[in-house]
Amino acid sequence: MSTLEERLRDVVARRYHDRHPFNRRMHDGELTPDELRRWIRNRFHYQRAIPVKDALITAKFDSPALRRMWVRRIQDHDGGADGEGGIERWLRLGEAAGLTRERLLDADGVLPGVRLAVDGYVNFCRLRSPLEAVAASLTELSAPDIMRTRIDAFERHYPWIEADGLAYFRTRVGQGSRDSKEALALVLEWARTEEQRDRAVAALAFKCDVLWSLLDAVDHADGSEIGDEGPPA
Amino acid sequence: MSTLEERLRDVVARRYHDRHPFNRRMHDGELTPDELRRWIRNRFHYQRAIPVKDALITAKFDSPALRRMWVRRIQDHDGGADGEGGIERWLRLGEAAGLTRERLLDADGVLPGVRLAVDGYVNFCRLRSPLEAVAASLTELSAPDIMRTRIDAFERHYPWIEADGLAYFRTRVGQGSRDSKEALALVLEWARTEEQRDRAVAALAFKCDVLWSLLDAVDHADGSEIGDEGPPA
Repeated sequence: MSTLEERLRDVVARRYHDRHPFNRRMHDGELTPDELRRWIRNRFHYQRAIPVKDALITAKFDSPALRRMWVRRIQDHDGGADGEGGIERWLRLGEAAGLTRERLLDADGVLPGVRLAVDGYVNFCRLRSPLEAVAASLTELSAPDIMRTRIDAFERHYPWIEADGLAYFRTRVGQGSRDSKEALALVLEWARTEEQRDRAVAALAFKCDVLWSLLDAVDHADGSEIGDEGPPA
Repeated sequence: MSTLEERLRDVVARRYHDRHPFNRRMHDGELTPDELRRWIRNRFHYQRAIPVKDALITAKFDSPALRRMWVRRIQDHDGGADGEGGIERWLRLGEAAGLTRERLLDADGVLPGVRLAVDGYVNFCRLRSPLEAVAASLTELSAPDIMRTRIDAFERHYPWIEADGLAYFRTRVGQGSRDSKEALALVLEWARTEEQRDRAVAALAFKCDVLWSLLDAVDHADGSEIGDEGPPA
């Protein structure tokens, strides 16, 4: 009989999007500049929703200490002032890859499958229990590893993207490690019954599906979607 | 024809809870120690919901700058560390008035009318538009004045409450002034149509009803509710 932590780690090991064909091609250096820009642009739709889902999770907590912990995640992405934070760093990644800030911020060109995946995740955090919402965040257990691999892959295979553009990935190594430790401790503390443990595992599997579906949508797009053209590399 | 700002200020002038009979008696020094403790304890149920409703409002915003503005409100109440923030200061007010922290934190003894008022406000912020949720916060337009009057009244009429206990009121003078300026600017910017202006005014009237109903419930309680007994002053 596996412990809850083993079950959670097993979900991530089997279903995290580092195993998705599109991510494998990205890290193997096989993406065209247009494909990479398509991913950066569509993934930005997810990035900009992160502080929204984190504010919804914050609203579920009845203690100042828990809210403080989760507000820090909002601040990681929104920054302390204009020009700071993870959302800004992702915009700079897009610019380093040849996308304009205006195109990144224009949500109209986001692929329908990406939009549905992001909406689904935000609504999950809006509607489910604190345990499930926090358990869904545990994809962060693997995020630092995928970030380290990605930094190496981008430097090796996509040197046309300026190194400064990778600041988002570099920052997330430390943030993701801290976030996943905190969230795992909460889930292990809160999941007392078998039903609660099952719900936590299902929440994390759902979140893996969200990230996987996002890459499916990007992978299956044929490049003819509105505004997907970018400058040649 | 009044401007929107005039209409909003008129709602607060006519309907803010500084005009409620219970608040008038509080500020005239006519409350018994038990009545004052009943108010402090039941009002705490409102205080502890403030960062929750502010997190729900934060989740409505799509820009880092707006979320930063509203996250600061969460931090005002939750503090930057244990022992800080508005919720902690209200707990100390209760202790200064002879209530234990355990009793303040035990939500079971909260009056039903107070519970309904607070739930109603939180759900309003959860479900309504950003414009309405922000407009509802504009009772802060009068909060600094009521705080100043209250500090004077407590020092004069209820000297058995230690002066340190009034730190919550003192802090809110500056915070409320800043918050209401920011929120008013957003509402005036966002309310472009007559329907939007009407909704903003209605949202603020609703919020005045919330605060008024809270005092109604405290005023009409007969002191026999569970756990309302306190130490003699």
